[in-house]
Amino acid sequence: MDDREEVLATARRARLAAAALRLLTRDQKDAGLVAMADALVAATDRIVVANAGDVERARADGTSASIIDRLTLTPTRLADIAEALRDLAKLPDPVGEVIRGYTLPNGLQIRQIRVPMGVVGMIYEARPNVTVDAAGLCLKSGNAALLRGSSSAALSNRALVDVMRESLAASGLPQDAVQLVPGDTHESVKHLMTARGLVDVLIPRGGESLIRSVVDNSTVPVIETGVGNCHVYVDRDADIDKAVALVLNSKAQRVSVCNAAETLLVHADIADALMPVLIPAMAEAGIRLHADERFSRYAAEATITCEPVTDADWAAEYYSLDLAAGIVDSLDDALAHIARWSSGHTEAIVTDSQTAAMRFVAGVDSAVVMVNASTRFTDGGEFGFGAEIGISTQKLHARGPMGLPELTTTTFVVTGDGHCRT
Amino acid sequence: MDDREEVLATARRARLAAAALRLLTRDQKDAGLVAMADALVAATDRIVVANAGDVERARADGTSASIIDRLTLTPTRLADIAEALRDLAKLPDPVGEVIRGYTLPNGLQIRQIRVPMGVVGMIYEARPNVTVDAAGLCLKSGNAALLRGSSSAALSNRALVDVMRESLAASGLPQDAVQLVPGDTHESVKHLMTARGLVDVLIPRGGESLIRSVVDNSTVPVIETGVGNCHVYVDRDADIDKAVALVLNSKAQRVSVCNAAETLLVHADIADALMPVLIPAMAEAGIRLHADERFSRYAAEATITCEPVTDADWAAEYYSLDLAAGIVDSLDDALAHIARWSSGHTEAIVTDSQTAAMRFVAGVDSAVVMVNASTRFTDGGEFGFGAEIGISTQKLHARGPMGLPELTTTTFVVTGDGHCRT
Repeated sequence: MDDREEVLATARRARLAAAALRLLTRDQKDAGLVAMADALVAATDRIVVANAGDVERARADGTSASIIDRLTLTPTRLADIAEALRDLAKLPDPVGEVIRGYTLPNGLQIRQIRVPMGVVGMIYEARPNVTVDAAGLCLKSGNAALLRGSSSAALSNRALVDVMRESLAASGLPQDAVQLVPGDTHESVKHLMTARGLVDVLIPRGGESLIRSVVDNSTVPVIETGVGNCHVYVDRDADIDKAVALVLNSKAQRVSVCNAAETLLVHADIADALMPVLIPAMAEAGIRLHADERFSRYAAEATITCEPVTDADWAAEYYSLDLAAGIVDSLDDALAHIARWSSGHTEAIVTDSQTAAMRFVAGVDSAVVMVNASTRFTDGGEFGFGAEIGISTQKLHARGPMGLPELTTTTFVVTGDGHCRT
Repeated sequence: MDDREEVLATARRARLAAAALRLLTRDQKDAGLVAMADALVAATDRIVVANAGDVERARADGTSASIIDRLTLTPTRLADIAEALRDLAKLPDPVGEVIRGYTLPNGLQIRQIRVPMGVVGMIYEARPNVTVDAAGLCLKSGNAALLRGSSSAALSNRALVDVMRESLAASGLPQDAVQLVPGDTHESVKHLMTARGLVDVLIPRGGESLIRSVVDNSTVPVIETGVGNCHVYVDRDADIDKAVALVLNSKAQRVSVCNAAETLLVHADIADALMPVLIPAMAEAGIRLHADERFSRYAAEATITCEPVTDADWAAEYYSLDLAAGIVDSLDDALAHIARWSSGHTEAIVTDSQTAAMRFVAGVDSAVVMVNASTRFTDGGEFGFGAEIGISTQKLHARGPMGLPELTTTTFVVTGDGHCRT
């Protein structure tokens, strides 16, 4: 069997499993999740040994300490991963939810209900926790999971998936609900991306180049999880203290995340009052400014030097304490800047003006708009979803933080009593 | 300017228009729709003359009478097209609808609201009514429309779009809300399909090969409207009269449509009672059977001859009075047949058994499942949507009949009072 045939055979087994999964009750799925959690904890030694093999190879390859840290599984981390599966079991089942329902004048009863997608492919990077996480989210939503992790975590992923499959089988559930995509070359990803008709949706999780490559080459529908070039706009009518707090929290509370702010825009009319407070506070927080001329002049007054801002800065997702900054003459200028440079993730306005807030909300075309709140709140957990698959920056199907319902599609169920069309 | 640059320049104008359209109120959009309707009626002569040019060329090219009929615009047809725009004005505005809303424990207020997609590309075949229809649906949902009709309707589409653009300008609305994609070669379609970032979604409407080509080649997200290989399954516990009526209505009420039935599956236990009534009724309706051996034996008893059914028949969307037919030994065998051959559009069960109905609904993976109702009801109009863009047979974003809400995406609006994340 060649590589492509092997991937397709795996996808066909996933389809068969999916047909069984869509008939499971919530009780059956939740019992499976808890059984998987118990099995992972019971197999701690086996998994940690497998993981040690990956870590050893990564060390020998000279992998960076931060990536090795993300790759490493300890008994404590494994317990946390298992606990997340138990939390998932406590969440409501998205399948079966009636999202529209009404009766037509002719008596036909129409209900639009959530049903599983079918086969969900996940393509992701080194973190082995995603293997368990994705398997759990798919099982809870009634989908079969096809998992393609990084080859650097191959031994860990193999062990985790083997343990979960054994536990599914022991629970009387289809073990092909969770499968690894065979092969660890780039070719196997290509076969997965072109298995249209066998795979219902692909979700890439990871860096920009991974996501770009899946979006460009997949004929299977993709949910793009994305880059966050988030903006904070301080309006003319902002409260100074709130503005300072929100800028610092959005930029500096945690920098290595997609919902951190990367650009600050300040209305010219508030700059005189705001800057003497904001600039020293930013400097104290270690924020490095890449600013336009007017902004830089304010910084200079506080003896802070800025780098001159470039188009590359306006476009950047820094993942660091760097911040692009500029002065705008109006809210509409801020909207125009955001329309040009934003990645469509999250934009925030700080204002006490109801008019300004309404205009900003209407004018921004992004997944999330914050009014007097930190960009850092764009997160499935913060939104109360209980579980998050990723944050979609595309417009089709799901936009913003995605929870379990975003792993479902819908069916219209139409019930009549021999109704014919005339 | 080369062809690609010309298409991209058009898309950029559409993006600018979209930024203005998302700020319009419902009143403004509805006034625009009514103005467009009035303008089209007032320009009847101009449009009919342009259309005559297309019709003349089609005749000279030896085009079939049915296609010429679909291409032809008469004053009456134009009045109907304009009336559809007025009907659209009466429908609720999907933009601004709050589809989820709640307050978090920390006081943050979260609302998920419908917003326009942005730029919607439509690729369609000879019917010039789609030009107006699509422009109207896009305007109502706050989107800019990029229209790429068939070159055989080029003069008609030019005239229709010119009249609509003039009326938009006269109403103070952005005239680039409606544009034709420049160029009538296949290349211009290719440029549209690869204008990712400028075009938010593509909706192909037409035959299978057109849709296939868009799905396979587009890097812009596509909403696939699809092929209907619909099944009717008559269960063991069906009412005979309802079963006969539903089979005839599903297959023969109108054959050239995607929601007509193409395959009939009959439970073996009801065949003795059903067939003596059903077979003559189907023959009288002119239905031509392609049947398996067991089904054919029942037909032979009523002196009706069947063609032996082939895999091509099980797969076919006939668009005619032909019907593939077979006997199954159980509901699960019917589900397995449907899982193998269905295009995921609509499947119907005829049964008086609640257990059978529940199992069928849970086991079928299609956009619509009918219980004791004709497959012909799968339609935005019949569902009470007021307007229909098409019927999606894909699972992402929209599945089944699509109305105005399916032309929107959502934004999360999060309102705080200086909320920072800790």
